[in-house]
Amino acid sequence: MKLATYEQIPVTPRGAGTGLSGGCLPLYGGIALSLERMNRILEIDTNNFICVTEPGVIVQTLQEAVEEENLFYPVDPASRASCLIGGNVAENSGGPRAVKYGVTKDFVLGLTAVMPDGEIIKTGGKLYKDVTGYNLTQTLVGSEGTLAIITEILLKLIPLPTLRLVLMIPFPSLEAAATTVSMIMRARIEPSALEFIERDAIIASREQLGTHVDYDDAAAHLMIELDGDNQDLIDERAEKLGEIALEHGALDVLLAETKQKQEELWTIRRSLSEAVKSRSVYKEEDTVVPRDRIPELLKRIKELCARWNISSVCYGHAGDGNIHVNLLKDDLPDEIWNNKLDTMIRELFEIVVDLGGSLTGEHGVGYSQREYISIMKSPVELALMKRIKDAFDPQGLLNPGKIFPTS
Amino acid sequence: MKLATYEQIPVTPRGAGTGLSGGCLPLYGGIALSLERMNRILEIDTNNFICVTEPGVIVQTLQEAVEEENLFYPVDPASRASCLIGGNVAENSGGPRAVKYGVTKDFVLGLTAVMPDGEIIKTGGKLYKDVTGYNLTQTLVGSEGTLAIITEILLKLIPLPTLRLVLMIPFPSLEAAATTVSMIMRARIEPSALEFIERDAIIASREQLGTHVDYDDAAAHLMIELDGDNQDLIDERAEKLGEIALEHGALDVLLAETKQKQEELWTIRRSLSEAVKSRSVYKEEDTVVPRDRIPELLKRIKELCARWNISSVCYGHAGDGNIHVNLLKDDLPDEIWNNKLDTMIRELFEIVVDLGGSLTGEHGVGYSQREYISIMKSPVELALMKRIKDAFDPQGLLNPGKIFPTS
Repeated sequence: MKLATYEQIPVTPRGAGTGLSGGCLPLYGGIALSLERMNRILEIDTNNFICVTEPGVIVQTLQEAVEEENLFYPVDPASRASCLIGGNVAENSGGPRAVKYGVTKDFVLGLTAVMPDGEIIKTGGKLYKDVTGYNLTQTLVGSEGTLAIITEILLKLIPLPTLRLVLMIPFPSLEAAATTVSMIMRARIEPSALEFIERDAIIASREQLGTHVDYDDAAAHLMIELDGDNQDLIDERAEKLGEIALEHGALDVLLAETKQKQEELWTIRRSLSEAVKSRSVYKEEDTVVPRDRIPELLKRIKELCARWNISSVCYGHAGDGNIHVNLLKDDLPDEIWNNKLDTMIRELFEIVVDLGGSLTGEHGVGYSQREYISIMKSPVELALMKRIKDAFDPQGLLNPGKIFPTS
Repeated sequence: MKLATYEQIPVTPRGAGTGLSGGCLPLYGGIALSLERMNRILEIDTNNFICVTEPGVIVQTLQEAVEEENLFYPVDPASRASCLIGGNVAENSGGPRAVKYGVTKDFVLGLTAVMPDGEIIKTGGKLYKDVTGYNLTQTLVGSEGTLAIITEILLKLIPLPTLRLVLMIPFPSLEAAATTVSMIMRARIEPSALEFIERDAIIASREQLGTHVDYDDAAAHLMIELDGDNQDLIDERAEKLGEIALEHGALDVLLAETKQKQEELWTIRRSLSEAVKSRSVYKEEDTVVPRDRIPELLKRIKELCARWNISSVCYGHAGDGNIHVNLLKDDLPDEIWNNKLDTMIRELFEIVVDLGGSLTGEHGVGYSQREYISIMKSPVELALMKRIKDAFDPQGLLNPGKIFPTS
């Protein structure tokens, strides 16, 4: 980094390259700095429930290592089998379990990071409370590789829940499924995942995996996980949950009690993104709204798509209000797709902002969303973010071209 | 703020003035800007579990208001009957329940804030996931009124636990009590509070409140709260907890099952700070270390105090490794107290840093700790923090003289 600064070479840090906003693309050439081989878990501290890790560890590897100690790192992005923990920190990754446990930022207690000029800083520590100076840890989490290069991470762990139950609930309409989400949360059921899946996503996944899915013609499914340490409490909540779903029009309530059946369902859930995207040229948006606005979000997305005559497939983390919207080109001519897409996305984001939402819940702004950020952030807010960027990286060498609009 | 900027007048935001690091003192005169009358709770959103509030609401008032909706704001500083939520956000307050639920930063989803030049920014939203741009919310939380003036706060709420149990466990030595802390956590008991109280603090509180405390001659007590929604699980954990404590030398295990008895114990806990401080001129330090280092921290504090011939009373949030150390002047002549205190505090902080800890867990740096921050933060880190300060407040008008050392 000292050399890069001296020679004014742009540097783009890179994890596994699984991100969904183009954050690791070296837009201006220079150095693509891979953290892939810094792949050691340095310590699993079972006294303090903390994992010390390098950034290049695959998230699933990290999860499995801490589970051997009966500890739990609940952040569980669909790409966990290939994405790196450093990338998760840089993007503040979320995933399905955020509804109960929070996102990556809620688990990062400290960082070691290399500044653009090669100086090393340490933030936080093996500490659950620490207010000495500004919170540099949280400024770095989710900064998408634009402020410093993360080389060591202290992660909070929690006790591994001993029991788990997964429910699959088909609904006859998007609205019925979406409305049920808020009702489940209002009933204090505290699911550890509350996923919404539209029919076409289920079908794409079923076809890709060659598996069977009950009620695959239902307009939407909710896939819900409950976890904990007390079977009675889980059963009680599952029963209440089933009642609520049926009251709101669910076609059935299917329980996956064995670990094998649960894994099958999670495999379907994790395959959705690739299955949907393999069917067509696509553009994915990572909308997030207050969770009680999901029914309206879905309704307005479908109206928008009908008006533009573009098909869409939605799924995502409904418990967090985080819905991934896949816009599909299908057999539209390139010219029409290319011409209309930008305007349509702007309209989509205007709906999201109108509902009190945000452009991206967990994928980041990166390259793909940078031109849209000013739909949501004011010139004052963007200028402030730019000054924070300058505070870390006055020469603008680190991951240039990301987050901020070009205009 | 526009006028203050135009006229170059320093502005020091102020909540209830209950902070413990002098954060609200207008060191350079100018305007002391009280947020006390912005005291409306604007909304308790029972669909999304979010409270929208102005900064001047008393924390206990806010807690009670959300509890009426069966929701829970668990951050519970001892000063909750008088401190303001805005001050809690500015200082990133902690308290006893952080061991299970986290500190203020873990509950702040969004802010409205006024910049030093009078411009208004909005950060976050009613959103559990949001990665559009840098995390200005978390940069502001804990920034001690030095970056912007917080005028509206979005707080995450959680379902109110229906059951609660408090245990009071006397120990014959500090070491036995401190060692037990780690053992309880290792056993996955997940207490909602795990407090350490040294004998002299119990005695001071007992005398001030005129109340009876069992085993008031025990060297230390652990006060432990369990909460949840399942009586069997709580009972099972209480039993396991009692066994662990007795194995590690506890003199007894006392249960407070009624709400009245629990409130009595919490009243004692909340009175400790004032009770101890009413006995002598004092200096309080807010040390925090990895929780398995508490036995060593206490041992070394007591050795240090013996060497300097200054008495100390310790208590605090042992589950977080956060121990408040009260150094007492007693009948030492002013001259000796004034001369030795600074050097002794430096030695204390060197011990803390040596144990992987931090100077302050929840009280902030403010005025009282600013000269010590460089014991822990490197010149590179301090310079970076200063540049962040400049990014928000280029003219240095907001709460000047805080956090950063004068030298």
